[in-house]
Amino acid sequence: SDGAPEFISPDGERSFKIGGRLQFDASTTHGSRFDDTGADRNVSGTEARRLRLDASGQLARWLGYKLEYDLANNGASVRDAFLKTGFGLGSNDVALYLGNKYDDRTLDGATSSNKTWFMERSLVNEAIAPDRGSYGLGIKGKIYDGGRNWHGSFAITSGEVGRDNDTSDNVTYMSRVHWNPWRSGENMVHLGTWGFYEDFDQTDSTVFKNTRIADHFNENATIRSRGISDPDNSTAYGFELATSLGSFAAAAEYGERAVDQREESGDETMRYDAYSVQAGYFLTGEHHGYSHKSGVWKFPEVKHPLSAGGIGAFEIAARYQGLDYFDAPDYPGGNGRSRTFGLNWYPNDWSRLMVNYILWDTNNRSGDFQGADDGNTLSARVQVVF
Amino acid sequence: SDGAPEFISPDGERSFKIGGRLQFDASTTHGSRFDDTGADRNVSGTEARRLRLDASGQLARWLGYKLEYDLANNGASVRDAFLKTGFGLGSNDVALYLGNKYDDRTLDGATSSNKTWFMERSLVNEAIAPDRGSYGLGIKGKIYDGGRNWHGSFAITSGEVGRDNDTSDNVTYMSRVHWNPWRSGENMVHLGTWGFYEDFDQTDSTVFKNTRIADHFNENATIRSRGISDPDNSTAYGFELATSLGSFAAAAEYGERAVDQREESGDETMRYDAYSVQAGYFLTGEHHGYSHKSGVWKFPEVKHPLSAGGIGAFEIAARYQGLDYFDAPDYPGGNGRSRTFGLNWYPNDWSRLMVNYILWDTNNRSGDFQGADDGNTLSARVQVVF
Amino acid sequence: SDGAPEFISPDGERSFKIGGRLQFDASTTHGSRFDDTGADRNVSGTEARRLRLDASGQLARWLGYKLEYDLANNGASVRDAFLKTGFGLGSNDVALYLGNKYDDRTLDGATSSNKTWFMERSLVNEAIAPDRGSYGLGIKGKIYDGGRNWHGSFAITSGEVGRDNDTSDNVTYMSRVHWNPWRSGENMVHLGTWGFYEDFDQTDSTVFKNTRIADHFNENATIRSRGISDPDNSTAYGFELATSLGSFAAAAEYGERAVDQREESGDETMRYDAYSVQAGYFLTGEHHGYSHKSGVWKFPEVKHPLSAGGIGAFEIAARYQGLDYFDAPDYPGGNGRSRTFGLNWYPNDWSRLMVNYILWDTNNRSGDFQGADDGNTLSARVQVVF
Repeated sequence: SDGAPEFISPDGERSFKIGGRLQFDASTTHGSRFDDTGADRNVSGTEARRLRLDASGQLARWLGYKLEYDLANNGASVRDAFLKTGFGLGSNDVALYLGNKYDDRTLDGATSSNKTWFMERSLVNEAIAPDRGSYGLGIKGKIYDGGRNWHGSFAITSGEVGRDNDTSDNVTYMSRVHWNPWRSGENMVHLGTWGFYEDFDQTDSTVFKNTRIADHFNENATIRSRGISDPDNSTAYGFELATSLGSFAAAAEYGERAVDQREESGDETMRYDAYSVQAGYFLTGEHHGYSHKSGVWKFPEVKHPLSAGGIGAFEIAARYQGLDYFDAPDYPGGNGRSRTFGLNWYPNDWSRLMVNYILWDTNNRSGDFQGADDGNTLSARVQVVF
Repeated sequence: SDGAPEFISPDGERSFKIGGRLQFDASTTHGSRFDDTGADRNVSGTEARRLRLDASGQLARWLGYKLEYDLANNGASVRDAFLKTGFGLGSNDVALYLGNKYDDRTLDGATSSNKTWFMERSLVNEAIAPDRGSYGLGIKGKIYDGGRNWHGSFAITSGEVGRDNDTSDNVTYMSRVHWNPWRSGENMVHLGTWGFYEDFDQTDSTVFKNTRIADHFNENATIRSRGISDPDNSTAYGFELATSLGSFAAAAEYGERAVDQREESGDETMRYDAYSVQAGYFLTGEHHGYSHKSGVWKFPEVKHPLSAGGIGAFEIAARYQGLDYFDAPDYPGGNGRSRTFGLNWYPNDWSRLMVNYILWDTNNRSGDFQGADDGNTLSARVQVVF
Repeated sequence: SDGAPEFISPDGERSFKIGGRLQFDASTTHGSRFDDTGADRNVSGTEARRLRLDASGQLARWLGYKLEYDLANNGASVRDAFLKTGFGLGSNDVALYLGNKYDDRTLDGATSSNKTWFMERSLVNEAIAPDRGSYGLGIKGKIYDGGRNWHGSFAITSGEVGRDNDTSDNVTYMSRVHWNPWRSGENMVHLGTWGFYEDFDQTDSTVFKNTRIADHFNENATIRSRGISDPDNSTAYGFELATSLGSFAAAAEYGERAVDQREESGDETMRYDAYSVQAGYFLTGEHHGYSHKSGVWKFPEVKHPLSAGGIGAFEIAARYQGLDYFDAPDYPGGNGRSRTFGLNWYPNDWSRLMVNYILWDTNNRSGDFQGADDGNTLSARVQVVF
């Protein structure tokens, strides 16, 4: 965003900028049958979802950097922290990153949290993820089609910022490709696919991944994973399908992950998959912002911003999604689904108000919230980018 | 402060600024009868009291933001992190804040830590406080009298930055009003009152609040609270009286808090109160800085700053204060008092040196330091704001 | 560095600047006989070695400040956080610091981590250190010879940023002096000596200090200390000898530390010492950057930077070093040595690539890795300063 000034050297080679994003959420959940002091899913409150600051710049025409951290957990957690270079390759463009960089994985996941249609990303992105999460230390490369109809990315990461180094890092390989088979003005069809492979260190003991089903605030409304001990490797892949037609847009995603146990420990496999289908419509005539270059959603161009006496942009959106830990050693894991109805207001190009209403159900086989349960969650967010 | 530059867009609508404050303390305590390796109140040393950085700015004429954190605990703790807007209401001005903002509670407490007369705020502010401390996530509003003779504030907060969200937030309602019944030039009389009500979540287990009596460095010289289990709600209120007459100023404050237990747990109440009386005098002719708009103390305007070949401003100050956990279920809590003598040197409008000498006594009924005890603490601070 | 802009007030009295450094490492170790899931020294991976940000400036001609923190541990750890003033003293210059400042101790240690010849500092610096590490809260002074042939420093520190203050701080006194008995252009001979004395608080229970022998990544390849309980004080000293002759430079350092137990606890002493010898040579004709003022290594002036179509500067370097916990109560501690071979590439004056190959051996008498062991570690670093 251009909320903070950018400083550029007289020769245009060097630059420096500070930026940030503030996201404040409120949330209330009702209807769960777990409603007492020991195990309460009907929780309410507020949180600072993201309090980010970053410094970025160019040290030369060919070398940029970024150092970003999030203060929302009342500490400083590193996000992007990388060096960047780029060059042409035939008619295409290549960007290379060294350091800690956010993953290119799923359409919803590769989209900035400032620009997703719903307050939280889809279950496909949240659940079908490597153990290290969405950031990893390593090398990432992206190639962009000269005609901006496709891009591909590849990443090799080893470990995380701040990890204890008394064991070897897990190594993760990840790739994503998108292609626009049809484009006409702002209308388009998007196809995408991605996958990753993780090689677990011999000392890694268990893979276990609960996933929140309501919103981020509610830590108790989760789909509970089954754990698998002594993991050897994990393989995951997914597909993306999306379209934007005038003020309407829709997207569908699917992903699956398999975690293989080490042979000497039993050679079992834990499998789970997730899907999401979502649609959005701008009541005020905007089209959905989309990057043909990177295959991700962008902020809409607000037709009637407040600063020009307008009312901003209004968008309605709906999503249906599910996650199922359908195969695990010994016994099945949990599953769950959610229906989300969203209303977004974009007063201008640097702020957004979001309201999400989520109907969710879970069926967990372990933990504090076993058995079938359902509830509804009302959430709101105020977001500003500077 | 204007130690760091502010960047303003050509149309004057947007701005950006970085700021900070550095406070370094030294402290030594003597005279306590607890003086061995197991329980030592006669401790000495130094600490970085505050190492703050903040980014703030305006994104439009009607919307500002601030993101501030403190590095003094060798981590990054969030302080102010909010969005701000404002508008006129008749002849009055209204400011609204969304996010994490420092409370408007007690005269000494509402005053910036750069501007309080003593190194630490009064016991009224430190002890008669909500469980969440002096910051809370929520909405705060302030209304300022057009004639700048009074202001009122109201806040509803729910939870804190970085709190685990496995239970509902406590909700806190808070208000403060000040009025200047008399003003003549820089002379004035200040009246104020404030209060808050906390609604504890059903899962909250205990309210317990020790309060430091010497200075911030000494973690062992505290007045020990009695705990109350299963709190239902808490109510607190306080009064402020102050005057500034030429180079002399004085202030008196009182506050009381009651914490009610849940009915099914015994329906008991814990009560305690605190008071403080303080006076200050500028040897170099300045008057005490005071904001008629907000009802808080400000930095003095230094008559003879070092940069103009002067000696800066010198202030002497004294404070008497006490805190008493006089009523609690089962058995009484601790109590204590302190007399503080202070000398402040203001070389210019962005720095200050402080020396505090504190005579304190405590009478605790539990913990490592039971029974009557007293001691003296000598503290000093160097403070710079940029 | 000048990667980020500096803002200077029109009168030149005030300034403000943001800076930072990014260091990303990769490391792989082989050859250790400890190679299983319980105790594995043959670990591999990557880490963000340093992710630093700092704000610094001048508030007046006579007063500067700096506030720096490191995000590499996925939190914010305070580094330099001080106020600074200076004045002339006869023909000499004096600088005074108040707050948290990096120590002036050993030639390799006093050199910035951006400018040391090897990825990690020598064992002399890493092991012959006070318990509080390389930063301490207090007052530091430096005096610089008007002819820039020597400097001296003295520091008194008490405690650390973020320490719990339930006991008194340890007080540490430290001094370092360097002298250039011969200088001719860029050629020089450097002599130096330093020492420190720590006064442990009566509540301090044990001194224990493991030291990494391979690189920073490998937390398991350490020389294990023997602990001494109830320490009373510690004394340490060291010597520096260095020379720079054309493109060649060499340095030798030695240091020893003794930790005395309190008399009533046994009055024992733990002793250990360390040495290092290193040499470097620029294949591209540069000389080793060196500050006659402060007696530390600096960045080389790259003769053929990339931006001018050159190949940058190439340096080869080798180091031999050892550490021995030769005397301790009851039983001996560990010892170890390493040989490091390094290749450094300086594309320009703000970036560096380093490769280090380390042959190490240890002989520990306690812990998970007892008995004689050896291995080899290959490490690489990418470093950018802005």
